[in-house]
Amino acid sequence: MAPQLDNYFATVDNMAESFIDRLRKAVAIPSVSADEERRGDVVKMGEFLATELRTLGAEVELRELGKQPHKEHLDLPPVILARYGSSPDKRTILVYGHYDVQPALKEDGWATDPFTLTVDDKGRMYGRGSTDDKGPVLGWVNAIEAHQKAGMEFPVNLLMCFEGMEEYGSEGLDDLIVEEAPKFFKDADAVCISDNYWLGTEKPCLTYGLRGCNYYSVEISGPAQDLHSGVFGGTAHEPMTDLVKVLGSLVDVDGNIAIPGISDLVAPLTDEEKALYKDIAFTMDNLYESLGSKTGLFDNKERTLMGRWRFPSLSVHGVEGAFSAGGAKTVIPAKVTGKFSIRTVPNMEIEAVDALVLAHINKVFAALGSKNTCKPYLQHAGKWWVASPSHWNFTAAGKAVEHVWGVKPDLTREGGSIPVTLTFEQATGKNVLLLPMGSSTDAAHSVNEKLDRKNYVEGIKLLGAYLHYVADEPMS
Amino acid sequence: MAPQLDNYFATVDNMAESFIDRLRKAVAIPSVSADEERRGDVVKMGEFLATELRTLGAEVELRELGKQPHKEHLDLPPVILARYGSSPDKRTILVYGHYDVQPALKEDGWATDPFTLTVDDKGRMYGRGSTDDKGPVLGWVNAIEAHQKAGMEFPVNLLMCFEGMEEYGSEGLDDLIVEEAPKFFKDADAVCISDNYWLGTEKPCLTYGLRGCNYYSVEISGPAQDLHSGVFGGTAHEPMTDLVKVLGSLVDVDGNIAIPGISDLVAPLTDEEKALYKDIAFTMDNLYESLGSKTGLFDNKERTLMGRWRFPSLSVHGVEGAFSAGGAKTVIPAKVTGKFSIRTVPNMEIEAVDALVLAHINKVFAALGSKNTCKPYLQHAGKWWVASPSHWNFTAAGKAVEHVWGVKPDLTREGGSIPVTLTFEQATGKNVLLLPMGSSTDAAHSVNEKLDRKNYVEGIKLLGAYLHYVADEPMS
Ligand SMILES: [Zn+2]
Ligand SMILES: [Zn+2]
Ligand SMILES: [Zn+2]
Ligand SMILES: [Zn+2]
Repeated sequence: MAPQLDNYFATVDNMAESFIDRLRKAVAIPSVSADEERRGDVVKMGEFLATELRTLGAEVELRELGKQPHKEHLDLPPVILARYGSSPDKRTILVYGHYDVQPALKEDGWATDPFTLTVDDKGRMYGRGSTDDKGPVLGWVNAIEAHQKAGMEFPVNLLMCFEGMEEYGSEGLDDLIVEEAPKFFKDADAVCISDNYWLGTEKPCLTYGLRGCNYYSVEISGPAQDLHSGVFGGTAHEPMTDLVKVLGSLVDVDGNIAIPGISDLVAPLTDEEKALYKDIAFTMDNLYESLGSKTGLFDNKERTLMGRWRFPSLSVHGVEGAFSAGGAKTVIPAKVTGKFSIRTVPNMEIEAVDALVLAHINKVFAALGSKNTCKPYLQHAGKWWVASPSHWNFTAAGKAVEHVWGVKPDLTREGGSIPVTLTFEQATGKNVLLLPMGSSTDAAHSVNEKLDRKNYVEGIKLLGAYLHYVADEPMS
Repeated sequence: MAPQLDNYFATVDNMAESFIDRLRKAVAIPSVSADEERRGDVVKMGEFLATELRTLGAEVELRELGKQPHKEHLDLPPVILARYGSSPDKRTILVYGHYDVQPALKEDGWATDPFTLTVDDKGRMYGRGSTDDKGPVLGWVNAIEAHQKAGMEFPVNLLMCFEGMEEYGSEGLDDLIVEEAPKFFKDADAVCISDNYWLGTEKPCLTYGLRGCNYYSVEISGPAQDLHSGVFGGTAHEPMTDLVKVLGSLVDVDGNIAIPGISDLVAPLTDEEKALYKDIAFTMDNLYESLGSKTGLFDNKERTLMGRWRFPSLSVHGVEGAFSAGGAKTVIPAKVTGKFSIRTVPNMEIEAVDALVLAHINKVFAALGSKNTCKPYLQHAGKWWVASPSHWNFTAAGKAVEHVWGVKPDLTREGGSIPVTLTFEQATGKNVLLLPMGSSTDAAHSVNEKLDRKNYVEGIKLLGAYLHYVADEPMS
């Protein structure tokens, strides 16, 4: 039987203004983790969150992570480790979020002050961090408070892990997760992360997969210093000439990776999987709107979604060391470093991809016959992640979505990576669910970031409902 | 009969310290034309030069050029137009130089303060502008003064044109030259420019040719804004993927331009011309030393010099709009602009080259079949220049070099362009000679720019001697 949630939902609706107020206070703290000068504000934001949780009766620890690597004068902001409830009769759910935000300056093109939550007449709540990730993080806090106000028992034990460095590489977090897996996180039965977005604007989704990423540098060098093309053009091998040929050998114009062997690593597409894409709420116009152009690779949604989620892709990001400003400069750059990355999918292992990439580049460069020196190397790598969407964690979330939104959620993957997802899965050995609150137009990381009032309020209902359905699911 | 110059040479030797003092005063004025904040110093340097010339009895005008284009708050520094002597019985020589300098900061790696002339125990005089171009400009001033001190009649009428914006595009100069060709410059029988360098460090040269330059941008655009490669990689045509293929189609690794038709425009190499390169004082080790590496295209000096002077070359300079910093960023740039240039030689006309380049790029891009948009365009162009080295202007300079340095000069070209050379030739219709004072190791535009004391002092003798030989040459 479905849990009785009417009272909870009504309470959330009644408290909506105060929940928006809580988000307003959070947005007003410019907790920009990338900006040294704002480190005090990041800490302040962590303390705000800790205070809110303590006031609601949670046990809270601010776990210090020491100094920031390569910036020994700078303390990392604390990770908030909190527990709400410790009944042995209840399931324990571990939730993760982050309280730091991307940088934002009014002059970047914001229509309103980025650190003043501004709600327009369509209920769009503008402000840095509104959707990424202060709204979802406060969603858990608000769910606790609404249960108290409604006089309802909280359905699970909640473990919370909120970090303050997500937008700057989650410094120090992996070690903490691994260390606390058998300690603070040991009771967790499943993990839920609310830090991604719906595929569109109308239909909620549950996310069960992420692509990985192998990020490469190819450094080509020759002369000891930059040369003037008037004086040396026509007398020396030019690194940039070689580099564009190497970069041009990696992927064709239609997005097919041209590195031999890569496609053999990709898990074959089954008919069953193929059928899944048909029903996803997504249209080619959604793509064109996001692109701002009609320069899509494919003319149908199924292949487009597969291109994003379940096939690898290769993007050339740029060149370091070459002339990159406006205007004209007649330089022959002495050392240029091309940057590209491959989005990986099952069953592409990091090392297998790496071996193929390096072999390909070395072969292409050798065939050029240049006297320059070519050094390709892996800059960093993160593995893809795919969870089982038939796990009770997903089943519960699916029912909660249907209860709150009146529609079955799409089961989606994401093309990008959220590395902490895999870390939680591997460290705890538990199922991880990505349960987004915001929608595809929220512009996280961009100017005019927003969270729709409706997504926030219904999202608070959803997080609470999810915990009730989790409590009801059979353990098997 | 050779002119009697012993008295002049002895006077120059006696006055050497005061000439170095004059250079010290000039270097101390940081007349950096690229730096708005230094505009006052550029003007000050022009006034210093005007005062020196007036003190010696020259008629001097500081010609204002109005506001700097695109910087309407900024006055261009004046061009110094000066005349020394106006005897109808004498030849008139027009000399050009510039009194502005490249930027220089101690922290860029200078061993000494760039604006304090510092002479080491080997007679190397370090300082910004020492060799480019304050030393040569003061060379003319010093030659006048030495004639006065020696009680010798000045052999020619000297017209001087010294500008203060050479290192920032010679803003406004072309118009002035064209305007003054029938007025202030109308008596000129020939032109001499001292603003380039010996090919090596031991042997003086006269320069009779420069390559031209067609500078291109290729703009490829698709999406309306930068995209995240996780989300959009594998779903959209990526401008950078297209661009590296287009840039890769322009030139092969051995420096051969791959644009069809370009090589047909190049004047054929005659056996006679081929023979000229054998005797030029240049070795492969000179090249390797300049490169700081052994990544030369050819293994012999003749082909290397031809690669620099008489064949075209194509260099890829960089990409605007792509990721160009250190580290890793997973961006799909929405609009990228590749920059490349072609160094041109006889008989490559700007328009003919342009037509071939644009046709080639449009064809290559069309063959890719990308939905992105490709816009190649000529950013700027300057024509090549080749003078007749058998003109009396060169003959006189050759004799002067032999008199001062005891060796016949090499006849050289330069791979780079000095656009004002062609402007003077076309506007006045007179022969133009490039007569360098400094040597190949002077590091103009680089850190630790210097001029050797010997090059300065013998250079002052050379400029004076050149004027005497000019006066003696038959007019034919
Ligand atoms: Zn986030
Ligand atoms: Zn984020
Ligand atoms: Zn110069
Ligand atoms: Zn210069």
